[in-house]
Amino acid sequence: MRAAVLYGPRDVRFEERPEPTIIEPTDAIIRLPATCICGSDLWPYRGIAPVARPVPMGHEYCGYVEEVGRDVRSIKRGQFVIGSFFFSDNTCPHCRHGYQPSCVNSESVLGAQAPLLRVRLADGTLVPTAELPSTAMIPDLLAISDVLGTGWFAAHAANVTPGAIVAVVGDGAVGLLGVMAARQMGAERIIAMSRHEARQQLAREFGATDIVIERGDEGVARIKELTGGVGADSVLECVGTRESMWQAIHATRPGGSVGYVGVPHGVALEMWDLFFTHVRLHGGPAPVRRYMPHLIDLVLSGKINPGKVFDLTLPLDQVAEGYRAMDERRAIKTLLRP
Amino acid sequence: MRAAVLYGPRDVRFEERPEPTIIEPTDAIIRLPATCICGSDLWPYRGIAPVARPVPMGHEYCGYVEEVGRDVRSIKRGQFVIGSFFFSDNTCPHCRHGYQPSCVNSESVLGAQAPLLRVRLADGTLVPTAELPSTAMIPDLLAISDVLGTGWFAAHAANVTPGAIVAVVGDGAVGLLGVMAARQMGAERIIAMSRHEARQQLAREFGATDIVIERGDEGVARIKELTGGVGADSVLECVGTRESMWQAIHATRPGGSVGYVGVPHGVALEMWDLFFTHVRLHGGPAPVRRYMPHLIDLVLSGKINPGKVFDLTLPLDQVAEGYRAMDERRAIKTLLRP
Repeated sequence: MRAAVLYGPRDVRFEERPEPTIIEPTDAIIRLPATCICGSDLWPYRGIAPVARPVPMGHEYCGYVEEVGRDVRSIKRGQFVIGSFFFSDNTCPHCRHGYQPSCVNSESVLGAQAPLLRVRLADGTLVPTAELPSTAMIPDLLAISDVLGTGWFAAHAANVTPGAIVAVVGDGAVGLLGVMAARQMGAERIIAMSRHEARQQLAREFGATDIVIERGDEGVARIKELTGGVGADSVLECVGTRESMWQAIHATRPGGSVGYVGVPHGVALEMWDLFFTHVRLHGGPAPVRRYMPHLIDLVLSGKINPGKVFDLTLPLDQVAEGYRAMDERRAIKTLLRP
Repeated sequence: MRAAVLYGPRDVRFEERPEPTIIEPTDAIIRLPATCICGSDLWPYRGIAPVARPVPMGHEYCGYVEEVGRDVRSIKRGQFVIGSFFFSDNTCPHCRHGYQPSCVNSESVLGAQAPLLRVRLADGTLVPTAELPSTAMIPDLLAISDVLGTGWFAAHAANVTPGAIVAVVGDGAVGLLGVMAARQMGAERIIAMSRHEARQQLAREFGATDIVIERGDEGVARIKELTGGVGADSVLECVGTRESMWQAIHATRPGGSVGYVGVPHGVALEMWDLFFTHVRLHGGPAPVRRYMPHLIDLVLSGKINPGKVFDLTLPLDQVAEGYRAMDERRAIKTLLRP
């Protein structure tokens, strides 16, 4: 098969790779009708998180089960399944507490920008749909795998509750779906921080009540102004830089919460400063597996359409152009068709 | 009157100062039957947080109301009152959310190692007891003002719930009273980290079920061992150093919480490392005012005796010896009698 491999900064190649096979008896092989590029793929693509050797890219997936290992019990050949970007057994103490990326047997997914994927720990990792979904629903289901699940965790980690005032830092796919999550959780007011018109429009469609175009201290001042000087109850940090983290913390009222899901690169938080803000912090790699059954229900019942974040669709062999479009912010998120 | 003033590292003087008077109509003057030295007083005492000019010391207090300003409504002359280490109006949005140290009118208390104290925002800051307490109860009531209230917040910020497994980093008065708080909140197992025999004994008396003498990575390994490899649900960080903060974070299970109340000195937290722990962080200066009515009830009904943390009592004029005893860890906490 041919699949995407990152060789170095801005060097994504679409090249021949061996087809995956069952290695462990708990594996499954799935065929992907669609896959996609993640904002977090841009860190190595831009050379900010350098790669030591060529890396098969992609960690978001859903698809049809082609084959299962002999110890797989709950997943059957022919089913449509969704998984998240960490394989997990879903039985260890951390999984039972709902933190599957911290599973004692967890492993990051690699190589999903391909027609076929080997999924480890298939029983723990994959959730099947009751019936095969329509083709039209596949982008919505694919979004669950990472961006929706991550936005959902950001909102949950930020303790969004009915009636809450929420702010969202970051207008990538995760931030936009964080808006959707906050809306689903009953937030009364959702302030999206974005200076990009197409993204502002999608944020409004997903439930944003206010748009703030200012950034940094000015953005914080604007949020304070919009909240009677108090700050937001819950802020979703969906970027991962030092600036975005402090913007999120300072936009939060004392006793409020920041849910952070942007993978932090080179950020060291001065605890003295944090101490006097009284802000609660929770985040990390999203435990998408925990939310997956609920999110699949929301998608299949037509209540949400997270697939709208895909504003560019390309055949998989044009994966390099998909990266370029996201790198240059011409696209929010690229869907790839193998 | 004569009171304690810090001039520089290890230079506490007991010297003549003007008696406080009502300045604003919302002030009260109270006479202190007892006052004390805080672990946080040792930061400037040791020169780690240098003082720019001579500073009147002390921020923990309870006592008899001598005089109130003309706008004070809920506090009367002759009452016995307790306050916390931040003056707060208890009416602003942050106060109503329960974060009184972040009150829009907040101010740190200074100069309570004295016979008399001016309390600003008396209606918001002070809580009176229904009747005058017995002399024997005064140390217990004084402990509410900071160390019990702070230990209580640490446990609350660490989400201690009935049945929880809790670890406490720090065996000062706050850590020991954090053990007491966790016990009151229904923790099933409370692991106190201490290598000091008298403190271990008090920890056990307050509800600790296990003692860990190891520190740093070894301490973390021991807590993992005691929790079947999982980590604690809730960890109270009651020191404020880089080592203690990471010890607390690494002793917590993914999805568990650290409540941190040790004032952090020179600690910058690498967010990349924090990200992958999945640990929730909350802390800051304790909103003692929020907990005060409940804590006064617990003390007056005889359910808790937080005053046991005072293991040295001195006349106020020996305040310098009180500091020395705590600095050298000869005393957990010094009570001073004006």
